[in-house]
Amino acid sequence: MNRKIIKPTTLPGFMELIPDEQILFNEMLDIIRYNYEKYGFLPIDTPVMERAEILLAKGGGETERQVYRFKKGDTDIALRFDLTVPLARYVAQHFSELTFPFRRYHIGKVYRGERAQRGRFREFYQCDIDIIGNGRLDIINDAEIPSIIYSTFKDLGFENFTIKVNNRKVLKGFFQWLGIENSIAILRAIDKLEKIGIEKVRLELEELNVDQDIIGKIVEFIQISGTNEEKLAKLGRLKIENDIFNEGLDELKIVNKYIGAFGVPSDNYAIDLTIARGLDYYTGTVYETFLDNHTDIGSICSGGRYDDLAGYYTKQKLPGVGISIGLTRLFYQLYEAKLLEVADVSLTEVIVIPMEGCLDKAINISNILRDRGISTQIYLEKGRIGKKFGFADKLNIPYVLLVGMEEIEKDRYTLRDMDTGEQTMLSIEEIISRLKN
Amino acid sequence: MNRKIIKPTTLPGFMELIPDEQILFNEMLDIIRYNYEKYGFLPIDTPVMERAEILLAKGGGETERQVYRFKKGDTDIALRFDLTVPLARYVAQHFSELTFPFRRYHIGKVYRGERAQRGRFREFYQCDIDIIGNGRLDIINDAEIPSIIYSTFKDLGFENFTIKVNNRKVLKGFFQWLGIENSIAILRAIDKLEKIGIEKVRLELEELNVDQDIIGKIVEFIQISGTNEEKLAKLGRLKIENDIFNEGLDELKIVNKYIGAFGVPSDNYAIDLTIARGLDYYTGTVYETFLDNHTDIGSICSGGRYDDLAGYYTKQKLPGVGISIGLTRLFYQLYEAKLLEVADVSLTEVIVIPMEGCLDKAINISNILRDRGISTQIYLEKGRIGKKFGFADKLNIPYVLLVGMEEIEKDRYTLRDMDTGEQTMLSIEEIISRLKN
Repeated sequence: MNRKIIKPTTLPGFMELIPDEQILFNEMLDIIRYNYEKYGFLPIDTPVMERAEILLAKGGGETERQVYRFKKGDTDIALRFDLTVPLARYVAQHFSELTFPFRRYHIGKVYRGERAQRGRFREFYQCDIDIIGNGRLDIINDAEIPSIIYSTFKDLGFENFTIKVNNRKVLKGFFQWLGIENSIAILRAIDKLEKIGIEKVRLELEELNVDQDIIGKIVEFIQISGTNEEKLAKLGRLKIENDIFNEGLDELKIVNKYIGAFGVPSDNYAIDLTIARGLDYYTGTVYETFLDNHTDIGSICSGGRYDDLAGYYTKQKLPGVGISIGLTRLFYQLYEAKLLEVADVSLTEVIVIPMEGCLDKAINISNILRDRGISTQIYLEKGRIGKKFGFADKLNIPYVLLVGMEEIEKDRYTLRDMDTGEQTMLSIEEIISRLKN
Repeated sequence: MNRKIIKPTTLPGFMELIPDEQILFNEMLDIIRYNYEKYGFLPIDTPVMERAEILLAKGGGETERQVYRFKKGDTDIALRFDLTVPLARYVAQHFSELTFPFRRYHIGKVYRGERAQRGRFREFYQCDIDIIGNGRLDIINDAEIPSIIYSTFKDLGFENFTIKVNNRKVLKGFFQWLGIENSIAILRAIDKLEKIGIEKVRLELEELNVDQDIIGKIVEFIQISGTNEEKLAKLGRLKIENDIFNEGLDELKIVNKYIGAFGVPSDNYAIDLTIARGLDYYTGTVYETFLDNHTDIGSICSGGRYDDLAGYYTKQKLPGVGISIGLTRLFYQLYEAKLLEVADVSLTEVIVIPMEGCLDKAINISNILRDRGISTQIYLEKGRIGKKFGFADKLNIPYVLLVGMEEIEKDRYTLRDMDTGEQTMLSIEEIISRLKN
């Protein structure tokens, strides 16, 4: 056939991994899933595409510009850009079939047609958990969430990370007390403290025409320091007479107390009054998580408490609290920072290599190993033995099992440890017990 | 807020499950993945959207009409409609980074804008494995594939199913010998034998203007019966002097012999000369799998051997063999046929219910259980005890652990088996060992 060849490429902004990398990526997904399930979250899976009317109910802003949207026949379709809007629609739609508080996890791909740039993806995995109450949801739930973050990132192999916790009511009440009506722009400026530093935050506040003495109070407030308990005490001593502030402070005290009870070491969480989360969506507790030695990566797990999940789709009042891990970006950044190691990654534990005339026995042994739960490949191509060992080596398969005439006669088979090069003749049972260790 | 409520619905043709069902669905996905990995297949994950030029390189036919296609900026984008075209592009693109034979599995969603009807989905999971050779691929691989089908469906809980095997070369050579130039229309007619019966196949052949004596030979051929060995012997006795036929017959003999060696019981596979697979894509061995007591469901796992995977994207000759399970449709049909049972499905093993004033201890116990790998939920809402038990019951959680003052005093906690209603006071270690069994 003399057919035109189309250059095989993916679209810019779409991550695609080779199998070694994919195995590592999947391991991370599995660890996240394992932890979410360990804390009693139920799985859901929603369509990647929905009616644009549903996904864009809130509308406006960057979301609307970035969304993948198209018509199929008469239907105006959009691809989901997060897992929160589909959750809201899901809970409203299946309300009568669900049990509340509804703890759900959702791991899936979402789509944003962002400007392509390094480390930004147009298709990426989000790994979300949320706890949704029917009418109300106890504040203790907000204290359990950091323990799930902690457990997950520990299992992912991280030691030095900090879950930063704040409460939007503390900020909101503080601004009310200062007489600031619309605090959203100010919250956005404060949220950048970690990234741009205190002087630039001050400049941004000046650009927003905030009075100098109020800027002074804001700067003093967001620079409150000390241990978590000291920060809470200092907040109390500000004597701010505002109900929202005091409600937020009480919540923050409870959350702070129980985060420890839920098993998060004090090294791994901190109250940080500058964390506001850009989104106006959150109404109470907010979380961000940073790798202590790689704060440049930004928050690796964020979320918070919201009053009303699904107001666009139902009159039911559904408060909730949740977090999200953007795994595609996290994986990319860990990989770039050389914090992930692909060498020696293999799902296959052993490859059986039959010598000439020994295929039947080699197949028989492969059957036995697989029946015993051992991931086994059998090399079925003809060729030189060196090529076959080369195949095992390239795939990082830790053991080769040689099945030749001599082996069959003795009913003992040569197991080669590909790491050390050591070869031993063993019975099938010995091989199984070696591989099971 | 007095905002307009948008009715929360999904698009027609999109499956969405409630958590009980989703747990079952995920169990099936996990079993499939476990089996694919056990046979040494490597994971890949490709973007859901690609350049339309790539995905539609082959073009024409129903695929092109059904595909979701749209422009974003200047880019002509399509959503993948299977996992085979992305595999072809992937192997061509990453050729130098892969090790051949390349055994890959891919579990992911694909999209087809089919006419909406019961049991047809526009978004559905495919679970594919393929073995891709560089230049050549041994025929023994074709005999290993049925063992993967067998192992997977056994683990999925099926007993009575038949993997039907044929070889397109046997059919092709037979038609060449009959002097029929273009056999594709005839193959399509034959492929329907199971569905429409021999008389209707005869009519379809008449409509294709096939001579009566040739129709006679075709009907005789596709009705060859007996054991697999008898069928092969009868094929041999036809004395068809055609190279392609004889090549196909030799391949079919090898595949038949080794399917047994790979551990598939003779009850679970059968040579069936009518299996052609509608697609002209396959060039050798073909497979279809039927539930013996539910043949109306159609083939639950199909595939075959092809000469040239990626001719549109590379000059490399890449023969392969593979299969696909369409899990969304399979799940739907099993569910409809009441072959799946959602009652008593729970990922959570125990729910800890704190009595008033006992929250700290309840949290502490939950931490211990989770540390020991037990999926644990803790009930954090206030309310009557009956409501809390009701919550555990609705979620099918098998055990409730009550933490009250009396329990804390004795350091023994009340474990209630929700199935039997039996309550026992046990130490933490006793509880762990009970839950681990």
